[in-house]
Amino acid sequence: MRNIKLIIEYDGASYHGWQRQDNALSVQEVMEKAITRLTGVECSLNASGRTDVGVHAIGQVANFITQSTVPADRFSYAINSLLPVDIVVKKSEQVPMAFHSRFSAKGKKYKYIILNSPIRSALMRNRAYFVPEILDLDAMKEALQHFKGEHDFVAFMASGSSVKSTVRTVFDISLERDGDLIELKISGNGFLYNMVRIIAGTLVEVGKGKIKPSQIQTIIKARNRKMAGITAPAHGLYLVEVYYN
Amino acid sequence: MRNIKLIIEYDGASYHGWQRQDNALSVQEVMEKAITRLTGVECSLNASGRTDVGVHAIGQVANFITQSTVPADRFSYAINSLLPVDIVVKKSEQVPMAFHSRFSAKGKKYKYIILNSPIRSALMRNRAYFVPEILDLDAMKEALQHFKGEHDFVAFMASGSSVKSTVRTVFDISLERDGDLIELKISGNGFLYNMVRIIAGTLVEVGKGKIKPSQIQTIIKARNRKMAGITAPAHGLYLVEVYYN
Repeated sequence: MRNIKLIIEYDGASYHGWQRQDNALSVQEVMEKAITRLTGVECSLNASGRTDVGVHAIGQVANFITQSTVPADRFSYAINSLLPVDIVVKKSEQVPMAFHSRFSAKGKKYKYIILNSPIRSALMRNRAYFVPEILDLDAMKEALQHFKGEHDFVAFMASGSSVKSTVRTVFDISLERDGDLIELKISGNGFLYNMVRIIAGTLVEVGKGKIKPSQIQTIIKARNRKMAGITAPAHGLYLVEVYYN
Repeated sequence: MRNIKLIIEYDGASYHGWQRQDNALSVQEVMEKAITRLTGVECSLNASGRTDVGVHAIGQVANFITQSTVPADRFSYAINSLLPVDIVVKKSEQVPMAFHSRFSAKGKKYKYIILNSPIRSALMRNRAYFVPEILDLDAMKEALQHFKGEHDFVAFMASGSSVKSTVRTVFDISLERDGDLIELKISGNGFLYNMVRIIAGTLVEVGKGKIKPSQIQTIIKARNRKMAGITAPAHGLYLVEVYYN
């Protein structure tokens, strides 16, 4: 028995998110079917976490236990030959049996792309959040510092989620403009449901002048979801990396 | 009567190229139908040139004559509301009646994207030419200089094309690597059929060591298509800009 870890890239546009479900096609289902076909044994994948409908991944991590004799680093090629063009395994390797993509994770890195241009884009249509209004990038950058560190981020969590603690640590957060694209990068020890999208939506409102950079602290302390900005759309979000020891 | 110039971006993945044709959906047909619906009069668009099946445009130019009273700079918004998400008019403006997108053009700029990575990409699948082999970027850059200036580029033209002269001037050509992506940029006074894709294919063979940089001169002088590289796939090509006086 071996435990195989996969690093997976996918375009979220055609899938109902990562998680397997009835009546809708998920990335997990497509991946599990490919591995089942390859090994001849029903495969069950543990991922680092769900991604919502439309969210992309550059470095989703999932693992599975197998008795297959395929060399660990060749699994990626073998699985890729059975996957559609919008999902790809970038790397496969053997890991200790105790490794679990979700429970062993020490943190994650996401990016969120905003298309800030007067006109929408054909090529970026499923890849970035289109914001035609002029954005004050300096104000947005000033707001970033308040997210850094350990905070109770309950104001930046979608309702309906049940977690023991809503305290999370943001390791790093940055914002860069390159032409019409604004790229938010954020890493932390964990993220609440929709947390990155609500932070992105809040930063856009800071850029529009509707929320002052200094108000971020107040919103965090108030623990009030209604004070934060909208949940920015899923198709601007990318799971970039999952951290392990 | 006014002459309206449009700058158009499109994702070529779902279209049978720019040019209207029977039994296959083209960008031109979708655009003309949208403008016809808007103005109530059958629209005929002149474009700067065709783009092949799968080729993208960031700055295709097309113009049409109209009696519509829509303000010139508002046409973009009005047409966009009738276009699918993978086509967008980025700008509209009134130009002199003598302006013709093709005959008035003084040159064009293209980019060609190569994905040089051991593993294919889900997100770039329709956007870049996947080359898994290691490429010698220095050799590719050395080859560039030989394309610059005025040459008979018949060795870099697809067969079956009939043009009076196969002499063209390349204004500028450059190659930059950014992570796994290699971006070729080329501008010139005009391009023969498939010229950019054959240059890209030839540069990849230079990168693989199959063609020496200095051989480019020999290939140009020999005027022999068989000596040049393959025609790189359409989905790596982007029409970036069309130049006018």
